[in-house]
Amino acid sequence: MNEFTNVSLDRMDRASLFHPVSSIHDITTHGPQIYTDAKGVEVTRDTGQTLLDMGAGLWCVNVGYGRTELVQAGAEAMQKLSFQHFFGGASAEPTIRLADRLLGLFRETVPGSDMARVFFGNSGSDANDTAVKLVVYYNNLRGKPDKKKIISRQGAYHGLTMTAAGLTGIAGYHTAFDLPGKGVLHTTCPHHFGFATPGESEAAFTDRLIAELEQMIAREGADTIGAFIAEPVMGTGGVLLPPEGYFARVQEVLDRHDILLIADEVITGFGRTGQWFGSGTYGLRPDIVSLAKGLTSAYFPMSASMISTRMWEVFANASEKTGAVMHGFTYSGHPVGAAIALANLDVMTREGMVDNAARLGPVLVDALQSRVGGTPHVGDVRGVGLMAGVEFAGFPAGSAPHKIVAKHAMQAGVLTRALPYRPVTSFSPPLCVTEAEIIEAATRYDRALKAAMPELDALHG
Amino acid sequence: MNEFTNVSLDRMDRASLFHPVSSIHDITTHGPQIYTDAKGVEVTRDTGQTLLDMGAGLWCVNVGYGRTELVQAGAEAMQKLSFQHFFGGASAEPTIRLADRLLGLFRETVPGSDMARVFFGNSGSDANDTAVKLVVYYNNLRGKPDKKKIISRQGAYHGLTMTAAGLTGIAGYHTAFDLPGKGVLHTTCPHHFGFATPGESEAAFTDRLIAELEQMIAREGADTIGAFIAEPVMGTGGVLLPPEGYFARVQEVLDRHDILLIADEVITGFGRTGQWFGSGTYGLRPDIVSLAKGLTSAYFPMSASMISTRMWEVFANASEKTGAVMHGFTYSGHPVGAAIALANLDVMTREGMVDNAARLGPVLVDALQSRVGGTPHVGDVRGVGLMAGVEFAGFPAGSAPHKIVAKHAMQAGVLTRALPYRPVTSFSPPLCVTEAEIIEAATRYDRALKAAMPELDALHG
Repeated sequence: MNEFTNVSLDRMDRASLFHPVSSIHDITTHGPQIYTDAKGVEVTRDTGQTLLDMGAGLWCVNVGYGRTELVQAGAEAMQKLSFQHFFGGASAEPTIRLADRLLGLFRETVPGSDMARVFFGNSGSDANDTAVKLVVYYNNLRGKPDKKKIISRQGAYHGLTMTAAGLTGIAGYHTAFDLPGKGVLHTTCPHHFGFATPGESEAAFTDRLIAELEQMIAREGADTIGAFIAEPVMGTGGVLLPPEGYFARVQEVLDRHDILLIADEVITGFGRTGQWFGSGTYGLRPDIVSLAKGLTSAYFPMSASMISTRMWEVFANASEKTGAVMHGFTYSGHPVGAAIALANLDVMTREGMVDNAARLGPVLVDALQSRVGGTPHVGDVRGVGLMAGVEFAGFPAGSAPHKIVAKHAMQAGVLTRALPYRPVTSFSPPLCVTEAEIIEAATRYDRALKAAMPELDALHG
Repeated sequence: MNEFTNVSLDRMDRASLFHPVSSIHDITTHGPQIYTDAKGVEVTRDTGQTLLDMGAGLWCVNVGYGRTELVQAGAEAMQKLSFQHFFGGASAEPTIRLADRLLGLFRETVPGSDMARVFFGNSGSDANDTAVKLVVYYNNLRGKPDKKKIISRQGAYHGLTMTAAGLTGIAGYHTAFDLPGKGVLHTTCPHHFGFATPGESEAAFTDRLIAELEQMIAREGADTIGAFIAEPVMGTGGVLLPPEGYFARVQEVLDRHDILLIADEVITGFGRTGQWFGSGTYGLRPDIVSLAKGLTSAYFPMSASMISTRMWEVFANASEKTGAVMHGFTYSGHPVGAAIALANLDVMTREGMVDNAARLGPVLVDALQSRVGGTPHVGDVRGVGLMAGVEFAGFPAGSAPHKIVAKHAMQAGVLTRALPYRPVTSFSPPLCVTEAEIIEAATRYDRALKAAMPELDALHG
């Protein structure tokens, strides 16, 4: 470690970078946190500190950091064909094979699914932006020009292009950006712990959500609603698991009103919930599936949008008359990203990481529950597969106890995420995590919570 | 070449891929064109054919294909830190150094520029989407909530997220997508050859465009206009060079009405026009600069948005009160992309590629002019740096002579682009191209044009 270099980098960062989703004031005051190396589940800071990354970056490094197989696959693909676009029917092998593999994987693991084709992009945000464009395109081609509104949910996170940010249902991402804008409706957040009325059972809560959805559709007119978008498990919203029977009931309503379902599997895809896709875990039958993050374990920016047969047939049947589908990005289908994604899927399969997530999910929740579940200020500990949340309770509205704990957690050597909608700390380790690493991370988090207790008590008042 | 594999890949492509900006009908009928290898300026198809890629992919492979320096830089960075996000003040060295380097490069080569910070994304589309969000954010923070409309130009190409596609001024990208939508205005395309009235000089044409801009601002109210967005040279529109005095006059109007200038340098950045940035070539003084493509020569999806000091100060001064700027993407600032971008800039600098573009630009235009400039049906040959266009003329509206020629050109071993707004074939080779390769490409294109002549004559009628 070179102290001079690090001081210089800190200064250079403050003077040159406009950080995403960051406070300029905080960086001006405290400087950035610079990371230098990462391997497996462990990341290293320029201070020399190593931390267990229980966030897997931003829910994305599914196979863990520094996997040589992915690096080699990327380097070989890049040396051979460093770029290829897919406009005008141009193509390349890794991307063809990836599209075929994704369709097969979804077909095998999501009963009743019927996906026809895969469109590629660069990020979860652009995948959801693409989904909105394709809903519009589909209903224009079908002669239903008014059927375009999208129903999303409060607490949803669907990315941050202008259109994706409108789908997002968290006020913090809307303020000062004139969002959510027109054409998006947000229903009640399906989080029983947070939004059930006193004494309301999970089944009764679901009944209420479904009745509200029906009322919204009746009020707006089904002929104006193009799609419903949902994360199988709401991630950034706070690791919010769907209540009992929720998706089967939603699906029934959507089918009855000819409304498409967009499954935002950017976080839940590729093993996170203990199955390959959250649509399998919770019985969704989507028309569009947005994928990113775990697709390449974030070694390369890539997203994929799977499209159902009923949508594809409308596009294909109209094609001779309408001409090219004028949507796409320069890097759509990048062959290097596809080669890395294929290597990523190979590693996940060979090492049984999806099963690992299913097996270790309960271990993670138990480890947190047994250590911090009984602690004052902790209201709920929950999870599915390798995504878990610790929700704080009893604090004044707008306060952020979980951010206080996250700072102590970093000092204790564990990276967690303090989420922006509910006072929740999330845990979403790489799927290669071991039981011992989970126990160590929970122990460190418990230590952090104890260290934070005086501040939490003061905040609680 | 394995014939069986290729047949299989062709079938797999048709059965699995939703190609961007492609005709489903064409692919169903003719299959995809599969590329397997690329090196320097040359790409290879699965048929064994090699072609000179005079498109540099989609105006993006500035250093040429298969540069080992970029592959190695990417592999080393990926092995060390395969992902790092930049949320909440997190950071990593390659990205810090890249931001610093971009600011320095722009400062040194664009007189009068005053850029403060760099925000990173994944594509030109998301960079322009970010630009719109930041214009909204800026004027909300300044207490000008009505000052949000964006003036763009007919023929402009600014990408294809929903919001970026609204900025784009080419009808083909709007049809069936309910675009351009509200909040975007399109002024007359500043293409003298195409839109001047009979006998109108370039200076008079500029006068007219400026008067129209003034009228538009007066009609809408300057307090409702947030920004003007422009490519220094319109690329996808048809390699449309700004008429005499245009940008100096536009700039004066914008300054007078407190309207920001967004320079979309996704195509023109990184040497394309014979200077590092088109803003330098044409004297723009932008508040936001969108960069992508040449930033990494498309080896890795990455975009950058440079922000001026006057915008940054508004953001920074508001920060303590407004909290985090809630915009960004998972892959914003990806350290592997940044390492590749730095290697890319090293190669460009070491091999003098910007000077090469300046020196060979006239060679390219002369080679095309001397071969096809006098040909019936060719109306104009033009260019700046290593971007040139051959515009066809005299054909019925809506016909596509340039697409006919492009198909013959592919057979003759040269890849060009047939653009969607004007009947223009574009040439934008990698900046490592040699004079011999330019001459060979122009010769092949001339051969293709001669082969296409019977079809062109028939189309012309």
